Amino acid sequence: MRVRKKPWAASYIQEHQEYIVLEPKNYLGKWQSRFAQEQPLHVEIGTGKGQFIIEMARQHPEVNFIGIELQESVIATALRTFLEKPTPNLQFVLTDGGDVDEFFNQHEIEKIYLNFSDPWPKSRHAKRRLTSPGFLKSYQAVLQEDGSIEFKTDNRGLFEYSLISFNNYGMNYEYVSLDLHNSPEAITNVETEYEQKFSPKGPIYKLVAKFSSK
Amino acid sequence: MRVRKKPWAASYIQEHQEYIVLEPKNYLGKWQSRFAQEQPLHVEIGTGKGQFIIEMARQHPEVNFIGIELQESVIATALRTFLEKPTPNLQFVLTDGGDVDEFFNQHEIEKIYLNFSDPWPKSRHAKRRLTSPGFLKSYQAVLQEDGSIEFKTDNRGLFEYSLISFNNYGMNYEYVSLDLHNSPEAITNVETEYEQKFSPKGPIYKLVAKFSSK
Ligand SMILES: C[S@@+](CC[C@H](N)C(=O)[O-])C[C@H]1O[C@@H](n2cnc3c(N)ncnc32)[C@H](O)[C@@H]1O
Ligand SMILES: C[S@@+](CC[C@H](N)C(=O)[O-])C[C@H]1O[C@@H](n2cnc3c(N)ncnc32)[C@H](O)[C@@H]1O
Repeated sequence: MRVRKKPWAASYIQEHQEYIVLEPKNYLGKWQSRFAQEQPLHVEIGTGKGQFIIEMARQHPEVNFIGIELQESVIATALRTFLEKPTPNLQFVLTDGGDVDEFFNQHEIEKIYLNFSDPWPKSRHAKRRLTSPGFLKSYQAVLQEDGSIEFKTDNRGLFEYSLISFNNYGMNYEYVSLDLHNSPEAITNVETEYEQKFSPKGPIYKLVAKFSSK
Repeated sequence: MRVRKKPWAASYIQEHQEYIVLEPKNYLGKWQSRFAQEQPLHVEIGTGKGQFIIEMARQHPEVNFIGIELQESVIATALRTFLEKPTPNLQFVLTDGGDVDEFFNQHEIEKIYLNFSDPWPKSRHAKRRLTSPGFLKSYQAVLQEDGSIEFKTDNRGLFEYSLISFNNYGMNYEYVSLDLHNSPEAITNVETEYEQKFSPKGPIYKLVAKFSSK
């Protein structure tokens, strides 16, 4: 996602550091201290403008959420939207989600969400896909043994690739939908920005998988 | 697939036993004797009216094909179509494909095709689906270690179920398409009757998977 650089973003982020972390390694082993109470931790990688994670945090006060995003201008928009009506169970982190194993402890996270990750359609860029084996290794390190990855996309090529990638890594599928918006689970589905924009154009795919076979 | 009983079917089958086997257990260990020459063996379960396997046999003289079908009236139609222009590398078997491990030797088969298998949409009928674990166990017994299953369907529910079933059984995905007719592989795809009928109405799904991780 290319975005115009927003001149207000950097200073806005600086001013709201109670809700956004810029040096995630400082919180290794201390993430719960960022929240009102100790609760299971769910992390979204590639949060974008935050629609999904903000709504999830509102619906699930019993979970602590962390939204990780690489682009300053994008996460600044998420932060601004969130601050219209903040909840004490959501924190943002401006960083590369591929490094989660460097700033979370082993098995610290209950769930990882990947929503509409950049597809990187060229095969020579396959390693950059957030569902490629290198990333799965990082996720495995920080997820609880019974923890899961929930992945949604409208991109057929990325979903086909990810089905194979998760399978070949040895992950266990829990749930697959090839048309989420026409599945029973649509009722409880929380939409992302991309999902809202692209679901009228074709099916939304969803996969939930675990590293353990429990 | 419900079909009207065809009065000519039984006698037609009786008259053409050089191309159709009615007592498959008689051929345990002797399948190659049914063909002009010894070659790798590919088996389709639920052959229907035979369009796929007849065309495959024509395109691949270097492979011996066997089409298994449960219904007499249906396989009689396949046989009749085939006999308009027979090839020496295709045999039909009137039997239940779930019993393959009773009439093939271990690791005798290189490839199994499942095309547009009956979906059995009710979950209490899940065990009847040809991609359920009970059937996978039979296929595993007769497939070569490096052998694969190629599965196509237009039925979303069955494909979602099968993705999970193959994965949870420990199979390794080799290929997934969520819209085969709009994939590069469409060029070499051989259509079945059902595929021809239903592909204008929505995507055709395809999965290729192995039991080994080689
Ligand atoms: C296509 S957008 C989707 C945004 C949002 N999840 C949605 O569904 O609307 C992908 C987002 O992931 C972010 N991103 C890509 N790679 C990332 C990484 N390694 N770590 C964190 N964010 C990443 C991009 O900056 C972009 O904002
Ligand atoms: C929906 S039709 C598809 C026919 C064909 N494969 C196609 O794609 O056009 C499914 C076929 O599988 C057959 N079938 C179902 N269960 C079977 C079994 N256990 N063994 C052999 N054939 C079976 C049915 O009789 C039916 O002809």
